[in-house]
Amino acid sequence: MSLLVVGTVAFDAIETPFGKRDKVIGGSATYIGLSASYYYKPIHIVSVVGSDFPKATLAAFNKKGITTDGVQVIKGQKSFFWSGKYHMDMNSRDTLRTDLNVLADFNPVLPEKLRKPNMLMLGNIDPNLQIRVIEQLKSRPKLIAMDTMNFWMDIARPALDKVLKMVDVLIINDEEARQLTGEYSVVKAAKKIMKNGPKTLIIKKGEHGALLFSGSEVFFAPALPLEEVFDPTGAGDTFAGGFMGYLSQSKTLSFSNMKRAIVYGSAMASFCVEEFGPEKLLALKKPEIAKRVKMFSTLSKFSIKG
Amino acid sequence: MSLLVVGTVAFDAIETPFGKRDKVIGGSATYIGLSASYYYKPIHIVSVVGSDFPKATLAAFNKKGITTDGVQVIKGQKSFFWSGKYHMDMNSRDTLRTDLNVLADFNPVLPEKLRKPNMLMLGNIDPNLQIRVIEQLKSRPKLIAMDTMNFWMDIARPALDKVLKMVDVLIINDEEARQLTGEYSVVKAAKKIMKNGPKTLIIKKGEHGALLFSGSEVFFAPALPLEEVFDPTGAGDTFAGGFMGYLSQSKTLSFSNMKRAIVYGSAMASFCVEEFGPEKLLALKKPEIAKRVKMFSTLSKFSIKG
Repeated sequence: MSLLVVGTVAFDAIETPFGKRDKVIGGSATYIGLSASYYYKPIHIVSVVGSDFPKATLAAFNKKGITTDGVQVIKGQKSFFWSGKYHMDMNSRDTLRTDLNVLADFNPVLPEKLRKPNMLMLGNIDPNLQIRVIEQLKSRPKLIAMDTMNFWMDIARPALDKVLKMVDVLIINDEEARQLTGEYSVVKAAKKIMKNGPKTLIIKKGEHGALLFSGSEVFFAPALPLEEVFDPTGAGDTFAGGFMGYLSQSKTLSFSNMKRAIVYGSAMASFCVEEFGPEKLLALKKPEIAKRVKMFSTLSKFSIKG
Repeated sequence: MSLLVVGTVAFDAIETPFGKRDKVIGGSATYIGLSASYYYKPIHIVSVVGSDFPKATLAAFNKKGITTDGVQVIKGQKSFFWSGKYHMDMNSRDTLRTDLNVLADFNPVLPEKLRKPNMLMLGNIDPNLQIRVIEQLKSRPKLIAMDTMNFWMDIARPALDKVLKMVDVLIINDEEARQLTGEYSVVKAAKKIMKNGPKTLIIKKGEHGALLFSGSEVFFAPALPLEEVFDPTGAGDTFAGGFMGYLSQSKTLSFSNMKRAIVYGSAMASFCVEEFGPEKLLALKKPEIAKRVKMFSTLSKFSIKG
């Protein structure tokens, strides 16, 4: 029984209205894995880094119950690097630089012992690679979730459509849902996506919360109104990691458990944005999480009489 | 015991991606009054119209338990007219035309019998007029709520700051809260507004729901994800009307009741956007409202296990 995460482990350079960091640890698998590790162990990461990637960071992952045997280290090459600058509203950003480096030739090979995961989370990578990962599995996981982005809709649509039919849950933001379907209404977009693809869809709306669609059921999870947002980088992956981590330790994949999983994911994301990079995710204590989840519960609770 | 509403009663011309109407009934007092009328009676409107305004519409208001003795009819003049065009996202719009007409010289005079309202809602009009209304009251209402807009922040800031100190609840959208305070974070904006002004603040976020701040308490009300939004005109006023109407029939102004009031307001707004102008608000049945409120309850309900 395990949670397998396939995605990037990388370096980011981030500029927000509140500060700047030239080199922090980043990547989708980093955020997903760290966030999930607060709910479930073991988590196995499959990714690729260059020889410039600090061994100490991989060791820190291991300490959190995240195995890194599936992280290929390519000698003499550099790790994936992304650099971005957030606008004042913190909801939009400009990509300043993308150096694919080791990612250019990434071919995710699942070690033999990782081919029967209980749960699989496919971070935002080329949908052709996402398909290749699924094809290596020896048994169908209980749940496969995936992320994607506008870029793949533009340049790899057939592969994206194919992988969407192979997964159970798609986790994207509202803008991506609109681009994927050509529908402005997220409700219409959700119906279109679920018609030919995953049975469950999560639409992330950043500071406005998240929507969970599954069959005819809908759930609206609030986001915590935060006084300070220092760095939104990784918030979406942190959300997905909390969601998958919580579900990994759940007995069933019922809609009620999915709702709870989204609240836990939202709580993790609310921590993520409070510091640069994954700093906060490396140092959280479980009582802090329980307290924050309680805030979510209080925030949106009301009762209607009669 | 009564709910007094001061605002505009007017004509609108509306264009959305889904259609066009050259002349529908509009105005803040129209939407507030109609929405509130589903929860509480009597409601008294104070406003001004020209002799072009249909008597049949005022009679329709009366039928809903809304008195219109306080609506001045200025002979030989035209009613306030606003024309706007919504963008594809339905969240932003361009004002195409604003003919103040009778509104240019509007001086809200409260009839003697309306000077002791239990509750007062000041629609979005010149803050100098909002002050004049409050100054005519013979007793302090249990609750005074007000709306405003960016325009008044630009041209009547001193009066706006003054009236903000005289009211209990401010109901504005997130963009307005940001402009009013210069703070991007809505949490910081809320603190600033409540420091010198009303003790309670509602920040409307359209399709993203609404936030209620009161002292150190916060509540996040979801918006219903809708498949079709035909016309957002009046949704904010309809929300405010549902809020005030629900509170008018409530025994206390507790935070729990305010939360419920916001959910009822959100439910009313979700109906409003389904048709052009106030059409839907004129024809609602109570069981429809109860059913919709239940949808809100289901939409955001989750339980976290100890």
